[in-house]
Amino acid sequence: LPAGCPGKVWFVGAGPGSEDLLTVRALRVLARADVVLHDALVPAQILRWARAAVLVAVGKRCDRPSAGQRDIDRALVAAARRHASVVRLKGGDPAVFGRLDEEIDALQAAGIPWEVVPGVTAASAAAAAAGQSLTRRGDARRVTIVTPRTGRGQLDNDCWADGLDEHGTVVLYMAGRVAASCAQVLLDRGFGPDVPVVAVRAASLPRQDVRWTTLAGMRSGFFDDGQPVALLIGRALADRRPAAAHRGGPHPARDLAELAAS
Amino acid sequence: LPAGCPGKVWFVGAGPGSEDLLTVRALRVLARADVVLHDALVPAQILRWARAAVLVAVGKRCDRPSAGQRDIDRALVAAARRHASVVRLKGGDPAVFGRLDEEIDALQAAGIPWEVVPGVTAASAAAAAAGQSLTRRGDARRVTIVTPRTGRGQLDNDCWADGLDEHGTVVLYMAGRVAASCAQVLLDRGFGPDVPVVAVRAASLPRQDVRWTTLAGMRSGFFDDGQPVALLIGRALADRRPAAAHRGGPHPARDLAELAAS
Repeated sequence: LPAGCPGKVWFVGAGPGSEDLLTVRALRVLARADVVLHDALVPAQILRWARAAVLVAVGKRCDRPSAGQRDIDRALVAAARRHASVVRLKGGDPAVFGRLDEEIDALQAAGIPWEVVPGVTAASAAAAAAGQSLTRRGDARRVTIVTPRTGRGQLDNDCWADGLDEHGTVVLYMAGRVAASCAQVLLDRGFGPDVPVVAVRAASLPRQDVRWTTLAGMRSGFFDDGQPVALLIGRALADRRPAAAHRGGPHPARDLAELAAS
Repeated sequence: LPAGCPGKVWFVGAGPGSEDLLTVRALRVLARADVVLHDALVPAQILRWARAAVLVAVGKRCDRPSAGQRDIDRALVAAARRHASVVRLKGGDPAVFGRLDEEIDALQAAGIPWEVVPGVTAASAAAAAAGQSLTRRGDARRVTIVTPRTGRGQLDNDCWADGLDEHGTVVLYMAGRVAASCAQVLLDRGFGPDVPVVAVRAASLPRQDVRWTTLAGMRSGFFDDGQPVALLIGRALADRRPAAAHRGGPHPARDLAELAAS
């Protein structure tokens, strides 16, 4: 590209992790990318569809040193000044806990065009894995996606629980390691100890694991292995399981390659 | 299939409407279906990928006569008793306002296996169309998807607004025609009149339309044409627009056909 003629940045949702839960649009944009700046959690089998691209891991993982947000913003602007097509690949949906606004602000300030490709967010992937509806007609008319984590990755106060109730479904993101204390916060706020809880680790991936319990049981915690976990909490949930879980795995390379190249 | 040997039902999220916002898994499951029972809002260009299937429109649209839920449940069970692969195709994500639990209960009662394929929900599609992040670090740690509609399609009370606040992002589904009264309810509950609102009609489709306003402006209402509308409300939103909107439209048939057949 000539100097001063910026490329375009595509914020792309990678979905929960299984390659076939990418959207068709995401697959195509990835296949045409010159550079992909991706979160650390995006699996290798998704990244390999960005065949022509330079891959740059920029994502943060809890409790591990990683690139700061300003470094990511700068890398994005720099990439768009040198390449026609830059993908910023984020786990799940870019609009949910993706710091999308900060990265867009950096691009706007630099005069770089951008576009967002939505993805399947963790709440939907976890619900599918566990065979749950997040709403129930006439009863659960609300789904609240919330994280107890603050900017510094720590549980600093309980205000994340303000206004929640056990009838609307609550989906906790980034709470795997603080599940026990989150359960106590909800119990302290009047949730019943028998409220159903479904914990889904690594939804859609081969290491997917689903646990059914109650809020009282959640006080013992769950998976403490640093894998992504979504916690579904609410009266709309049931002890109901899909007959056969479809797990992610390798797919024939030919068809996706042809799709992506089209 | 021999009598008494049921097929399998796939609950599949069709996403917001654009064909390329289907997941790869959804495309493949559709292509192999024998019967597809679909919501009325699923566009024809998505349905045509179910080439081998009998298509049955069963979805409800507000204010129009349509199949009752029990009829849908019965049709689903009957289809699974006659065919190996039945798809129940729902707009957006099946777990969000899809009455998925009722249909699963009917299948469980009949001993029919089922599985859920998640999709891109309207909140994510609307946020992408409008270039919005639904969360903001250190401020908006919550996204609440909620509908003011009850079982009978009417606004019967204001309890949908319980516990909401202007810092967490609120996404109203199925509220296009009652936007003005919803705005008043939120104002009455202490939301500021200057809280940003983004209304997205038909996200991802050629007739997509995005309007930026405030809660005070929302009292005038929006699109009153029966198209699906998502209303994004909260302090995390900004008057920020993607440089170039990617609109859904026809794609080369060859590549999707090959992908779907694989």
